[in-house]
Amino acid sequence: MSDETEESLFDKGLAVRKEVLGADYVEKSIAGADEFTRTMAEWSTAYCWGALWSRPGFDRRSRSIVNLAMIAALNRPHELKLHVKAALKNGLTKDEIKEIFLQVAVYAGVPAGIDSFRLAREAFKEMDGE
Amino acid sequence: MSDETEESLFDKGLAVRKEVLGADYVEKSIAGADEFTRTMAEWSTAYCWGALWSRPGFDRRSRSIVNLAMIAALNRPHELKLHVKAALKNGLTKDEIKEIFLQVAVYAGVPAGIDSFRLAREAFKEMDGE
Amino acid sequence: MSDETEESLFDKGLAVRKEVLGADYVEKSIAGADEFTRTMAEWSTAYCWGALWSRPGFDRRSRSIVNLAMIAALNRPHELKLHVKAALKNGLTKDEIKEIFLQVAVYAGVPAGIDSFRLAREAFKEMDGE
Amino acid sequence: MSDETEESLFDKGLAVRKEVLGADYVEKSIAGADEFTRTMAEWSTAYCWGALWSRPGFDRRSRSIVNLAMIAALNRPHELKLHVKAALKNGLTKDEIKEIFLQVAVYAGVPAGIDSFRLAREAFKEMDGE
Amino acid sequence: MSDETEESLFDKGLAVRKEVLGADYVEKSIAGADEFTRTMAEWSTAYCWGALWSRPGFDRRSRSIVNLAMIAALNRPHELKLHVKAALKNGLTKDEIKEIFLQVAVYAGVPAGIDSFRLAREAFKEMDGE
Amino acid sequence: MSDETEESLFDKGLAVRKEVLGADYVEKSIAGADEFTRTMAEWSTAYCWGALWSRPGFDRRSRSIVNLAMIAALNRPHELKLHVKAALKNGLTKDEIKEIFLQVAVYAGVPAGIDSFRLAREAFKEMDGE
Repeated sequence: MSDETEESLFDKGLAVRKEVLGADYVEKSIAGADEFTRTMAEWSTAYCWGALWSRPGFDRRSRSIVNLAMIAALNRPHELKLHVKAALKNGLTKDEIKEIFLQVAVYAGVPAGIDSFRLAREAFKEMDGE
Repeated sequence: MSDETEESLFDKGLAVRKEVLGADYVEKSIAGADEFTRTMAEWSTAYCWGALWSRPGFDRRSRSIVNLAMIAALNRPHELKLHVKAALKNGLTKDEIKEIFLQVAVYAGVPAGIDSFRLAREAFKEMDGE
Repeated sequence: MSDETEESLFDKGLAVRKEVLGADYVEKSIAGADEFTRTMAEWSTAYCWGALWSRPGFDRRSRSIVNLAMIAALNRPHELKLHVKAALKNGLTKDEIKEIFLQVAVYAGVPAGIDSFRLAREAFKEMDGE
Repeated sequence: MSDETEESLFDKGLAVRKEVLGADYVEKSIAGADEFTRTMAEWSTAYCWGALWSRPGFDRRSRSIVNLAMIAALNRPHELKLHVKAALKNGLTKDEIKEIFLQVAVYAGVPAGIDSFRLAREAFKEMDGE
Repeated sequence: MSDETEESLFDKGLAVRKEVLGADYVEKSIAGADEFTRTMAEWSTAYCWGALWSRPGFDRRSRSIVNLAMIAALNRPHELKLHVKAALKNGLTKDEIKEIFLQVAVYAGVPAGIDSFRLAREAFKEMDGE
Repeated sequence: MSDETEESLFDKGLAVRKEVLGADYVEKSIAGADEFTRTMAEWSTAYCWGALWSRPGFDRRSRSIVNLAMIAALNRPHELKLHVKAALKNGLTKDEIKEIFLQVAVYAGVPAGIDSFRLAREAFKEMDGE
């Protein structure tokens, strides 16, 4: 284990998170946290984005592939839309996202595939409107 | 839709499947099918390997990333071990598989991560013994 | 494997799908597809409705029982509503759908049962309004 | 097995359910049942609230912990919000619910944690508005 | 709600359970229960087999279709094998079980389908050996 | 976020983990790690046991209730057995574990309940043999 502090993981994570999800979104998200949700938001920033996404040896594009496949299978619509947007920022094209969700349809079942395509379309539309 | 026949999808799929899973394994698997399981085996070959894995625009290494992440989340031990072996054949290193399963631990939960690491170790051992 | 082409599976599937889901719905759905979703829609038509639903030896009423039970357990609200409507067209009565979802409550848990009843009621209402 | 009747389980369950979810909510819910949903509602009252929640040897606060953890993992938003409200009535504080959902984030994955926090906040808001 | 007692539900359930799973299996299962597992076994008998499976208006063959589809999706190998055996006793043929699990492969994903076929084959073999 | 380092979280986690799972088990587990699994083991110790289980405001007995309910629903047999053993060390009685798994049967479905009871019995037997 490193001697990195939670605080420095958080700072590192915040920078990655802003690059991937956009500074605007992240700042709005932080401003919206209250006493009840703050620890969850801090952990997500420090552990997901600081400890995991910052690890060397696996590029961001590949990490986005992992998340799209996994979150589609886990059936979590809000997070899936978020990570569709992140995937585009990390260099995946719409055509590649299409290939991922066709594979979801085959291995996680057609309803999982259809739901993922619908949510991706919503995410694309939201990005165009931003 | 293409005018490709089921039969030609099957033939194409069989070739890909042998490249990825090894000719020995695939031939043994086909020989082991009976009247009850034959259609499932044929569909898996024609649709997974023929229709999906043979599509252009997304390389095999990326498809292996999708499957490891997705099948870990779907909690299917037999298929996960199979696709760990396939992933090595498709060019993922053990270090990269480690990164994928650390990400599984964060997004699908620690028990999913721990199970995936244990199954991957079993798969590695089986490959060494082959 | 048959020598049937993807194209003929698609045509066969399209006919079955229109019988089960209604020609209006299916035509609207096809018109709504874009480049991103087209392959998913074609696969769903060719493989679900053409290759699977058209198989002899298992009647459509029985296939609807399978789908209601399975999609309730898989927790996919959009697809569940669609297949509640399809089930009525395939000859299941509301009383039989009730029996299926009571069984879902016992084997997949009370929250799965309650969600399924609520979604079925929404589907019934949408059909009445059509 | 006891010689208790379904009817008396229902009566016992109705009393517990009103204590935990509030008499108003329960009466509205019963009034809203129709022929299609009535058995599900009766079973839920008799078996969940009458047979299970009325068992001695495990207090209601502990049963609420079980349900929050389990329903978060099962990914059932409607029931989760209902049981967040029930948990507060059964003596869990918001700080304790926060601890439960941080644990959900670690063991069921970050998206499950984030979804649970968001739903809990919605439930709190609905209670404040009542 | 009926005025039926838990005890009479249990007796009714025991009779159905013996018809479907075989008297030998059920008696061995009851003899194997201890203080820790007894209530679970009694509830399963009274509520699954007494309250649910004994309801009129949905035949046993249809209930077996529901359970095979649902338990395959729920990923519960022990229960799936048990209900494959029950399904044969309730009049489903091996060819029909094959159709159900092909449908599982399409809607719940190929790994769910393959696992279900393997478990069904194990169940068939165990029945032949009995 | 605290200025605690990963290393100190690991040390704190290691102490808690040994108290809950037994020093023997934990040392054997650490000795069994290799280059492939080491980071997963370290993260589990630092983040599960150091960051989560060490938080004030929620006692270990309550955290064990959360984990039994959640891991039963997540369908992870290895981890469930481990946490059944931990639960006994954290002060839950067998009778209370029975209540938790009856509740699992009602809310996550009878197969989840039956599987959990069987796994708990195996865990009890392993503890008696230790």
